[in-house]
Amino acid sequence: MKLWKKDYTLDKQVEEFTVDRDFVTDYELVPYDCIASIAHAKLLHAMNILTKEELASLITCLEEILARSKHGTFVITQDDEDCHTAIETYLVKKVKNAGKKIHCYRSRNDQVLTALRLYYKDKITSVLQKIDELEEALKSFEKEYGHIALPGYTHMRKAMPSSVGMWSESFIESMDDNKMVLEWTRVLIDQSPLGTGAGYGVGTEIDRNLTAKLLGFARVQENPIYVQNSRGKFESSILHALTQVMADVNKAASDIILFSMQEFGFFELNPEICTGSSIMPHKKNPDVLEILRGKYHEIVSYEVRLKGLAGNLPSGYNRDIQLTKEPVMKSFIITESCLDILSMVLKNVKVNEENCRSALVPEVYATEKVYDLVREGIPFRDAYRIISKEFQE
Amino acid sequence: MKLWKKDYTLDKQVEEFTVDRDFVTDYELVPYDCIASIAHAKLLHAMNILTKEELASLITCLEEILARSKHGTFVITQDDEDCHTAIETYLVKKVKNAGKKIHCYRSRNDQVLTALRLYYKDKITSVLQKIDELEEALKSFEKEYGHIALPGYTHMRKAMPSSVGMWSESFIESMDDNKMVLEWTRVLIDQSPLGTGAGYGVGTEIDRNLTAKLLGFARVQENPIYVQNSRGKFESSILHALTQVMADVNKAASDIILFSMQEFGFFELNPEICTGSSIMPHKKNPDVLEILRGKYHEIVSYEVRLKGLAGNLPSGYNRDIQLTKEPVMKSFIITESCLDILSMVLKNVKVNEENCRSALVPEVYATEKVYDLVREGIPFRDAYRIISKEFQE
Amino acid sequence: MKLWKKDYTLDKQVEEFTVDRDFVTDYELVPYDCIASIAHAKLLHAMNILTKEELASLITCLEEILARSKHGTFVITQDDEDCHTAIETYLVKKVKNAGKKIHCYRSRNDQVLTALRLYYKDKITSVLQKIDELEEALKSFEKEYGHIALPGYTHMRKAMPSSVGMWSESFIESMDDNKMVLEWTRVLIDQSPLGTGAGYGVGTEIDRNLTAKLLGFARVQENPIYVQNSRGKFESSILHALTQVMADVNKAASDIILFSMQEFGFFELNPEICTGSSIMPHKKNPDVLEILRGKYHEIVSYEVRLKGLAGNLPSGYNRDIQLTKEPVMKSFIITESCLDILSMVLKNVKVNEENCRSALVPEVYATEKVYDLVREGIPFRDAYRIISKEFQE
Amino acid sequence: MKLWKKDYTLDKQVEEFTVDRDFVTDYELVPYDCIASIAHAKLLHAMNILTKEELASLITCLEEILARSKHGTFVITQDDEDCHTAIETYLVKKVKNAGKKIHCYRSRNDQVLTALRLYYKDKITSVLQKIDELEEALKSFEKEYGHIALPGYTHMRKAMPSSVGMWSESFIESMDDNKMVLEWTRVLIDQSPLGTGAGYGVGTEIDRNLTAKLLGFARVQENPIYVQNSRGKFESSILHALTQVMADVNKAASDIILFSMQEFGFFELNPEICTGSSIMPHKKNPDVLEILRGKYHEIVSYEVRLKGLAGNLPSGYNRDIQLTKEPVMKSFIITESCLDILSMVLKNVKVNEENCRSALVPEVYATEKVYDLVREGIPFRDAYRIISKEFQE
Repeated sequence: MKLWKKDYTLDKQVEEFTVDRDFVTDYELVPYDCIASIAHAKLLHAMNILTKEELASLITCLEEILARSKHGTFVITQDDEDCHTAIETYLVKKVKNAGKKIHCYRSRNDQVLTALRLYYKDKITSVLQKIDELEEALKSFEKEYGHIALPGYTHMRKAMPSSVGMWSESFIESMDDNKMVLEWTRVLIDQSPLGTGAGYGVGTEIDRNLTAKLLGFARVQENPIYVQNSRGKFESSILHALTQVMADVNKAASDIILFSMQEFGFFELNPEICTGSSIMPHKKNPDVLEILRGKYHEIVSYEVRLKGLAGNLPSGYNRDIQLTKEPVMKSFIITESCLDILSMVLKNVKVNEENCRSALVPEVYATEKVYDLVREGIPFRDAYRIISKEFQE
Repeated sequence: MKLWKKDYTLDKQVEEFTVDRDFVTDYELVPYDCIASIAHAKLLHAMNILTKEELASLITCLEEILARSKHGTFVITQDDEDCHTAIETYLVKKVKNAGKKIHCYRSRNDQVLTALRLYYKDKITSVLQKIDELEEALKSFEKEYGHIALPGYTHMRKAMPSSVGMWSESFIESMDDNKMVLEWTRVLIDQSPLGTGAGYGVGTEIDRNLTAKLLGFARVQENPIYVQNSRGKFESSILHALTQVMADVNKAASDIILFSMQEFGFFELNPEICTGSSIMPHKKNPDVLEILRGKYHEIVSYEVRLKGLAGNLPSGYNRDIQLTKEPVMKSFIITESCLDILSMVLKNVKVNEENCRSALVPEVYATEKVYDLVREGIPFRDAYRIISKEFQE
Repeated sequence: MKLWKKDYTLDKQVEEFTVDRDFVTDYELVPYDCIASIAHAKLLHAMNILTKEELASLITCLEEILARSKHGTFVITQDDEDCHTAIETYLVKKVKNAGKKIHCYRSRNDQVLTALRLYYKDKITSVLQKIDELEEALKSFEKEYGHIALPGYTHMRKAMPSSVGMWSESFIESMDDNKMVLEWTRVLIDQSPLGTGAGYGVGTEIDRNLTAKLLGFARVQENPIYVQNSRGKFESSILHALTQVMADVNKAASDIILFSMQEFGFFELNPEICTGSSIMPHKKNPDVLEILRGKYHEIVSYEVRLKGLAGNLPSGYNRDIQLTKEPVMKSFIITESCLDILSMVLKNVKVNEENCRSALVPEVYATEKVYDLVREGIPFRDAYRIISKEFQE
Repeated sequence: MKLWKKDYTLDKQVEEFTVDRDFVTDYELVPYDCIASIAHAKLLHAMNILTKEELASLITCLEEILARSKHGTFVITQDDEDCHTAIETYLVKKVKNAGKKIHCYRSRNDQVLTALRLYYKDKITSVLQKIDELEEALKSFEKEYGHIALPGYTHMRKAMPSSVGMWSESFIESMDDNKMVLEWTRVLIDQSPLGTGAGYGVGTEIDRNLTAKLLGFARVQENPIYVQNSRGKFESSILHALTQVMADVNKAASDIILFSMQEFGFFELNPEICTGSSIMPHKKNPDVLEILRGKYHEIVSYEVRLKGLAGNLPSGYNRDIQLTKEPVMKSFIITESCLDILSMVLKNVKVNEENCRSALVPEVYATEKVYDLVREGIPFRDAYRIISKEFQE
C-alpha cells in the first residue's frame, strides 16, 4: 500500500509507468534506509514522540529488515512503489503505532536522499579500493617489465624513447589524481539532508545535528531547498569523477589493443582472455579490452543524462530527478567491474622485449642528437635545424 | 558452447564481462535470427551446400525455435554468449550436419546485423502505430475542447490569443513530421547486410539479392566494410528520430504540467493519474508527466553514447559497437511506452473553460489593436508605437 | 534603434549580453532576409496594404541592401540587435512609410525562421556538393590504388583479405547514404514558416501559399505554435545529418592515421600536408588528420547543446532557442571545410603496395582454407575446427 | 615562421585548417607564456646553457612582449601558428642566440600546458570572485525581501510554506559548495607540467622543482606521459565545475522567469532589463533570463565535447586534444559574464509581498495541520489520513 493512499485508485498503467523498476533497483538501498530510519527514530524518541519501548521495537524491526535484505528475503513489490514504502508498511504491520509514527518530521524526499548519500559514500569507498588494487597490478606489471624500452608516440608517430615503466607509472599517477577527485566528491556529498522534509523543512525545529552525527555525516546540509536542488548536481559530480577513472581505463585499453596488434607486437595477450571468431579460425580477439574501452562512453552518457534532466526546471523537488538513481547505481557497478577486469587483464599481458627493442629506430633518438649538439655549444634552434636535415629524404 | 571454441578455456571473469546481459537482451532477437537463418539456408541450398532434406530439417527446426521463443521456452545461457550461438548449438544438436553447415558463407557479424535490421524495421513500424494512436487522442481532445480560447505565450509571457485547438494541432502536425523522419530512417536501414561476412565478404560470389528478397529488404547494402561501419551510424539515426518524437512528448508534458498548475488552472488532471505525497495530505502530483518529461533526456543520452562509442575507431568491426544494442532496444521500449502513456494522459485531462477565459486579459489583444489602426491606414510601426504607450505604466 | 523601442532605456549590460554576437553572425543571413522581405512585401501589396509604388521602392531598397551585404558595406551594429532590425531601420530611413508598413502581419519570430530556413536549404545543397567532390576524390584514389590488396581488420586484428578498392568504396557508399539523409532533412525543413507571426498567427487570414511559393518552399508549415516548437528540432535534425557526414570523416581520418603509421606503412602522406615538431627534428605529423578526427566531436557537441536547450521548456517561443543559431551556422562551415580538406588529403596519400603485400600473412587466408574444406564436403563447423587447430600454438 | 620549418612547404590550405583561430584565441595566453618562459630561462641559466647576460636580455625581451600584449601591440599571425611560435620568433629576432637557445629542454607541448595551467588558475580565481559578488547580491536581496513568505513547490504544485529568504539562501549555500568544487579543481591542476617535453621527458635530468616553484605551482606533475594524458581530463574537470555553477544560474533564472509570470506575480522585473517584441506592443520579455538559462547547455556541451575528443585515443599527445583550448576559454568567459548578469538582474527584481501572501492558500498548511494532530498524540500516518480526507473533493 502506498504511503499517500487516498480514496481514489491510481490508474494501474500510471502506477507501472511511474514506479518502473524502482522497486527492484531500490533493493540495494534497503540497508541504508534502515540505518537512517533508526537514526530518525532516535530523534523522535529524543523529541518524546516515540516512547522508549516504541523506539526499541522499531530498532529491532529495522534491524530485522536489514538482515533479511542481506539474505534477499525482504520483499518489495511494485505496489509498494519503492523500498521506503515497503519498510514503513512492514513496520506498521509489525509494531503498529510506532510504525505509524516513524514518518513524523521527515518526508520521503529527505529519506531517499539520506539513504542515497549513505550508499554513495560506501560505493565511492569501494571504487577507491578497486583503484588501489589496479595500482597494485600496475606496479607488479612495472616491476616485471618496467625496464623495457619502447618508442614513445606523439600524433601516433614514433617520437622519443619511452619505457614500459613510464607507461605504467603514467596510469598510477593519473589514478592517484582520480582518487583525489573521488575523495573530494565524497567530501562534497558528506552532508546530512535528513530533517529537511520535502524541501521546505518540517514545520518545527528539530535537532538535525543529532541524526547527522548518528549517521556519520561530516556536516548538516542546511537549506531545505538546496537539499532538493543538490539532487542531480551531486550525482553529476559523482559521475564526473567516475568518468575520470573510466577515461584512464579507456586509454589503457586503447594502448593495450594497439600495442598488441601484430604490427607492433610490444604486448602479448594471454589467449585465455581472448575470444574467437565464428568464421575465422585463427582469430584471438581482445573483446575484453574493447568493452573496457566502450564502457567509458556509457558513463559519459549517464553524466549527460543527469545534466539534461535537471536543466530548465524550477527549484524544489521534481519527479524527473528520480531518474538519476538508476544511472548512478549502474555507473558504480560498471566502474567497479571495469577496474577489476583491467587489473586482471594486466596479469595476462606479457611484454615482448625483442619487438620493443627493434621498434627503437634511429629517428627516435633524433632529439637526443640535437641535445648532443647543444652540449657542444650550438644554440638549440640551430642544432634542431642541422639534425632536421638528416631526417629529410 | 561457443562457436569459436578452442583448446584453451576462456577465463570465466572475461566471459561474464564480455557477454554481460547479451544473452538476456538477445531474447527478443531470436525470431528475427530464425527468419534470417531460414533465408540463408535457402541460399545454401541454392548453392548445393545443403540438400533438400537438410534444408527442410533446418527450416522445421528454426520454426520450432521461433515458436518456442514466443512461449519463452527457448533457452539462452551465459555460456552461449548470445542468441546466435544458442540457435546454432540447438541446430547442431537436432539436425547434426545440416546444423554444422548453416554458418557457411556468413559470419556472426552479418548475422547479428541482419537480425537487428529486421527487428528495427518492426519496431519503427510499431512506434509509428503508437504515434497514430496519440494523434487520435489529440484529435479527440481537440474535438472536445478545441474551441476554447486561452492566451498564447512567448518568453513565458502572455502574448496573443491562442486556443486549445491550436495547441493540439501543433502536436499533430509535429508528430506528422516525426513520422516522416521515422519512415525515412526505416528506408535508410532497409538494406540487407547478409552475405558480407565479418566485413570483408565471404570469399566467394553469393546471390545476395536472393536473401535480401526473401527477407523483404528493399535493397542490398553492397560494401562489406560499410556494412560494419554503418553499425552505430544507423542506430544513431534511429535514436535521433526517437529523440524527435520524445522532444514532443517532453514539450506536451511540460505544457500540461504548467497549464494544470493552480496558478493557471487551464487544464485539470484526473486524480486517478496523480500520485500523492508521503507527508503532504493535500498533494496530487503529476509524476506521470514529470517522468514523461524526463524520459526525453534518457533517449538523448543514448544517442550521445552511440556517437561517442564509434568515434576515433578505425574501420571494420570493433566489439565496442556491440554496446549499441541495449540502448537502442531500450529506446524503442521507452518511446513506445511514453507514447502510450501520453495518449492515456490526454484522456484524463479536462480543460477549464472559465479559467481560460479569465486569463485572456486585455494586453493579449494589443497586437489586434495595432492591426485595427493599420486598417485605418496608419503604418504598422507607427500604430505599434501608439498602442505601445497604452501598455506602459 | 530597436523595433520595440519604448520610453525606458534597456540596460546597456543587458543589451550587450542578450545581443551578444548576433549582430555579427547575422551577417550571412542578410540576403535571405531581403529575399523573404520582398516576398512579404508582395503579399502586403496583394492585400492593399502597400501601394504599387511603395512595393517598388521597398524592392529596390531591399535589393540594394542585398547587394551591399555581398560587398560587406551593409552595416549592423550592436544597437540594432540583429540583421532584421538593421534592415527595417534602413528601410524606414530610405522609404519612410513603406518601411514602417513592412512589418505588418509578420513578427520577427517568423521572419528569423524564414531567413534561417532559406539559409539552411542553401547550406545543405552546398554540403551535398562538397560530398560529391569528396566522392570524386575517393574514386580517383580507388582508380589509382584500388587493385592493391591489404589485410582487413576486425577487433583491430588481421582478419581476411581486403583491398584499397573495398576501403574507398565503403566511404563512397556511406557518403551516398549520408547524402540521402541530408536530402531528407532538406525536405523536412522545406516548409514556409512565414505568416505565423510570433507563434499565434497574425490575427487575420493571409495568403501564406503566395509567400511560400515566391520563396520556393515546397509547402506551408501550417500550425503557428508548431512553427515555433520546430525551431531547435529542425536544427537538431540538420546537426544529426552533419554528424553522419562527420562520422565518416572521423573514420577515414582514423584509418589514414593508422595505415600511415610506420608499423603499417600501407599509406604514405605527402610531407606537404604534414607538420613538424618544435623539438623532434624528424617528425612529420598528421595534424590535419587529427583535427579532421576531432571536429566530429565538435559537431556532436553542438547537437547535444540543441537537444538540451529546448528540453523541459513549454510551447511557444523562448529566447533560449535563439542560441541554436550559432552552432548550426558553425557546423555547416566546419563540415564543408572538413570535406574540402579530406578531399585534398586523399590527393596527397600514396599507397605502398609492397608494404600492403607483405602484411598479407597466412592467417589472413584461414577462412578461405575453411571454405576449401567445405568445398570438399566437410560441414562448415567441422572444417572451422580443423583449420582452427592449425593456428594454435 | 614555424618552429619546425623544413625544406618543403606546408600546403597553405592545411596550414589554415590546422592553425584555425589559434593565433587569435592564443592572445590571452601570451602573458602566461612569457612568465613561464622566464622561469624556463632561469633554469637554463642554472644549467649553464644561458649566460647571465643572455638570461637578462631574454627576461627584458619577454617582459616587453608581456607589456605589449596587454596593450594589444604584440602581433600573432596565422603563419606563426600560435603564440608560442610568435614569441620564440620575436626573441630570436631581438636577442639572437639567446632566443635560439630558449627552447632547449622543453617542447611546445609542455610549454602550452604550462601557459594554460597558469591561465586556468587565474580564471578559476576570477570565477570565484564573481561568485562572491553574486552571493553579495543574493544577501542584499534576502536582506530586503527575505522575510516575505510564499508557497514552496514540489512537482510544480504548491506544497508547504517557504520564504524569499529560504529561496535566496538555497543559492548561497549551493554556490558555497560550487566554490569548494572550483577550489578543489584548482588544487587538481596546480601541478607543473614544465620539463616533461613532448611527453617522454627531455633526455636529461633537469630541476623541475625550480621552475615549478618559480611559477607558483603547488607541486610537480611527475610522469611525462601522464602530463599529456591529463590534457583534456583536467579541462573536463574544470568544465564540470563550471557546469555546477551554471546549473545554479539556470535554476535561478528558471525560478525568476516563473515567479515573474503574471500568473504568479511574486517577482517583478525592472522594465530596464526587459526587451520588447517586434509586433506585440505590450510585451516586456525576460530575454536576459532566458539566455542565462540557455547558457548552461552551452557549457554542458563543451564538457561533452572534451569527453568525446579524447575517447578511444592512445596515450601521448594527439593533436585532437588541442581542440579543447577554445571551449575551455569560452566557458570561463561565459560563466563569468553570466554570474555578472545574474548579480545585476537580482538588483532589478522586486518582490510583490501582496501577491506572495495571497498565494498562500489553505492547503499549503495541510502538513502543519497533520503535525497539530501529532502533537495531540495521534500517530503521524493516522493524522495524515485524517487531514487527507479534508482535501479531497
